[in-house]
Amino acid sequence: TCDIAEGFEIRQAVPRDYYKKHLEVLAQLTDVGIVSHKQYVNFVTFATLSQNTYVAVIEHLPSKKIIGSATLFVEKKLIHSCSSCGHIEDVVVDSTYRGKGLGKSLVHHLVGKARLLGCYKVILDCAEKNVKFYEKCGMKQKEKKMEVRF
Amino acid sequence: TCDIAEGFEIRQAVPRDYYKKHLEVLAQLTDVGIVSHKQYVNFVTFATLSQNTYVAVIEHLPSKKIIGSATLFVEKKLIHSCSSCGHIEDVVVDSTYRGKGLGKSLVHHLVGKARLLGCYKVILDCAEKNVKFYEKCGMKQKEKKMEVRF
Ligand SMILES: CC(=O)N[C@@H]1[C@@H](O)[C@H](O)[C@@H](COP(=O)(O)O)O[C@@H]1O
Ligand SMILES: CC(=O)N[C@@H]1[C@@H](O)[C@H](O)[C@@H](COP(=O)(O)O)O[C@@H]1O
Repeated sequence: TCDIAEGFEIRQAVPRDYYKKHLEVLAQLTDVGIVSHKQYVNFVTFATLSQNTYVAVIEHLPSKKIIGSATLFVEKKLIHSCSSCGHIEDVVVDSTYRGKGLGKSLVHHLVGKARLLGCYKVILDCAEKNVKFYEKCGMKQKEKKMEVRF
Repeated sequence: TCDIAEGFEIRQAVPRDYYKKHLEVLAQLTDVGIVSHKQYVNFVTFATLSQNTYVAVIEHLPSKKIIGSATLFVEKKLIHSCSSCGHIEDVVVDSTYRGKGLGKSLVHHLVGKARLLGCYKVILDCAEKNVKFYEKCGMKQKEKKMEVRF
């Protein structure tokens, strides 16, 4: 259903991806902290049942390991005739598997989903060093991102 | 419950804010398009029942008109020990009522909510010209925002 290098598959995350080391790949993005098996299952179940959160993973089929991950969530709005905005979050590909276009496949997969779901735009925030990558995925830099941490 | 100029109140949006011209103030932010009364009621009801979307409005009490609006939605994540990230969206104050600190009250209100809900950070995207305003609200510029429009 989508273009990706041979031996890899993009699909929705399922509870047993906990054992396929999904959290280990996320740890290459930022601090994962402690997430128990129960919390993982709850999160994946919540996402699957929610109508707004889609957690995509890339499985390396020969090793049965999760080597990439990204999340789309769809924010309903009043503006643009009650349209929605897609947000892409937590994009990561295991460093061992970079350079095969897997990240690009993942982003295209989620952008395609957002489009099908009727979003009028998809947005994300990224480090300066990743701007070129997202430009290759067809995105443009626009506006400024602000934050406050607790 | 929160600091705001006299004669104004910040509260959650309710269905009858449609008649208090909520959409008219949103139109000062961007294209609202066509939103029927039914769609408005559905949206506000959905937001109120959802556990992740909080639409705040400012009512000007003497005129019973909505003159400001902003939305917080809370994105559940796996990272940071299954923490959440707050997103502030669609912030607008009617141009007639600017310069009274109403926008700042609105942002503080939502940042406070996000903190209470356990978010580890709150983020938003804004036009270059609004960076100073959000800095005054205690936020810092970080990362780049990318987008694709359909
Ligand atoms: C496109 C993309 O993947 N952006 C990610 C964001 O989704 C993630 O949540 C954050 C984690 O960093 P933090 O732990 O410092 O909040 O990093 C980047 O902004
Ligand atoms: C902090 C804030 O209010 N940011 C808003 C965003 O929430 C809103 O959805 C968008 C609408 O613009 P658009 O109609 O061009 O998408 O403008 C700004 O980015």
